[in-house]
Amino acid sequence: MATLADPVDLLGEARRIAAGVDRLFEGALADRCDGRDRLCAAMRHAGIGGGKRLRPLITVAAARLFALDEERALRAGAAIEAIHVYSLIHDDLPCMDDDDLRRGKPTVHKAFDEATAVLAGDCYHALAFELLADERTHEDPFVRSELVLELARASGIDGMGGGQAMDLAAEGETLDLGAITRLQQLKTGALIEYAVEAAVIMGRVAPEGRAPYRGYARNVGLAFQIADDLLDHEGDEEAAGKKLQKDAEMGKATFVSLLGADRARQQAQMLVDQAIEHLHAHGEEADLLRAIARYAVERDR
Amino acid sequence: MATLADPVDLLGEARRIAAGVDRLFEGALADRCDGRDRLCAAMRHAGIGGGKRLRPLITVAAARLFALDEERALRAGAAIEAIHVYSLIHDDLPCMDDDDLRRGKPTVHKAFDEATAVLAGDCYHALAFELLADERTHEDPFVRSELVLELARASGIDGMGGGQAMDLAAEGETLDLGAITRLQQLKTGALIEYAVEAAVIMGRVAPEGRAPYRGYARNVGLAFQIADDLLDHEGDEEAAGKKLQKDAEMGKATFVSLLGADRARQQAQMLVDQAIEHLHAHGEEADLLRAIARYAVERDR
Repeated sequence: MATLADPVDLLGEARRIAAGVDRLFEGALADRCDGRDRLCAAMRHAGIGGGKRLRPLITVAAARLFALDEERALRAGAAIEAIHVYSLIHDDLPCMDDDDLRRGKPTVHKAFDEATAVLAGDCYHALAFELLADERTHEDPFVRSELVLELARASGIDGMGGGQAMDLAAEGETLDLGAITRLQQLKTGALIEYAVEAAVIMGRVAPEGRAPYRGYARNVGLAFQIADDLLDHEGDEEAAGKKLQKDAEMGKATFVSLLGADRARQQAQMLVDQAIEHLHAHGEEADLLRAIARYAVERDR
Repeated sequence: MATLADPVDLLGEARRIAAGVDRLFEGALADRCDGRDRLCAAMRHAGIGGGKRLRPLITVAAARLFALDEERALRAGAAIEAIHVYSLIHDDLPCMDDDDLRRGKPTVHKAFDEATAVLAGDCYHALAFELLADERTHEDPFVRSELVLELARASGIDGMGGGQAMDLAAEGETLDLGAITRLQQLKTGALIEYAVEAAVIMGRVAPEGRAPYRGYARNVGLAFQIADDLLDHEGDEEAAGKKLQKDAEMGKATFVSLLGADRARQQAQMLVDQAIEHLHAHGEEADLLRAIARYAVERDR
């Protein structure tokens, strides 16, 4: 229930939006009743009924700033989540992070096999663009086209994919704070920034008016990453549903290893405060975005 | 040189278009001079200076039917080639076909490493949509949006990706002619059909006028696949630049194992004749498409 201290029901909104993403994925991933059933099952295993759905939540929250249709924002958010899910499936592969557990369940290559995991990731990748380019996401093809172009950029070599390559290259290297910030801005920040950008594009905000939303997104993305490093450092594997402290074991620098836990926590809080400040021109329509920013540092997993 | 018997210089056109694809990929894959350089190098290794570039050749040839700007058709063709390259990189991985050689060079995971190969494939996948959604590919956002939607469908679970899953599921099974035709229509046919469809979309052909072009594409796609099976059966590994007869070794059905070489050859020739028949309403602007159809069965690799 909304109160003065807690003006939005973040958990309730997150659950509702997660259910919407599940519904969109279920619609796309029904069994084909032929040799593709194992692929469909692997995709459902990876993408339905799990995860925080942070990126769709951000897109739907940002869509409120411009009074956009929520179902359309949800479709764009589900496209971003499809990119996120594909990246997790591929990241977990033995040749990448070699993880057995994700969201408390066996990873796709464990529950199925490696070849199916590669294909399941690739098909989530295609699904993202299929969701975006559909007229149900936006009636204006110019908007759809811009949504596609920016998602391709945010996920490719100058976004998430490039950040993952930097992460591979960093093994055995000692990155400083600037390098790790840059790496994380590409690896995880670009897609979170796009989650806000998608609403900004759908809201037809003129390019010169987009800076505050980018500022919010950049600060929140970095705050989430620092908080992830803190949770990884202090957290509980069972609650997290995945293996923790892998970076520390591999001698990789994190915000916590570079700043120490106390300064990392202060830094994350400062980023959250700045993110909320970027929304000062907005009233209560920005409350969900403000709650998401606070959640970045207040969550326990 | 063009003569009556050989009205178009297929080899010359193919070389010119391959050089155009190289140019577009080179523009996108310049070193970033940071931790992404190994990824950029792997992507250049996989995608530049090799391959028949059949799909871009088909798109540029089909674009002539509607007198479209060739540079724009080339961009759409390069997007399709980017999808093709990503699928080859991932197909060659140890957990998939485990191939060491591709286009006469070491595969990406051999020349670099598996993690880089996964990322290089993923970044070619994103590059495809980045190329398509750019206004340089088409000035009309409706056209760009349709190009994106149809490529996502042709490469995902109801296209190439789904066909690859069927191929995995077929291991140890004995497929009949209907099942193998369906498998190949998804696995390799969908992207070849899209190579024609892209030009049809850019040429703003009304939906009711698209059937002959789909017929051409479907027949040519299947003819190429049957000819591939024949080359695999009879060919020379050195000329092919890859390992041959893997399907036979694994007991997988092919058009040649099901029909025998003679009937497979007749079937491919019939498909080529039918493909050319679909172009009967066109004059010499369809000569390059006709030459490509004939090449499907006349090539030696």
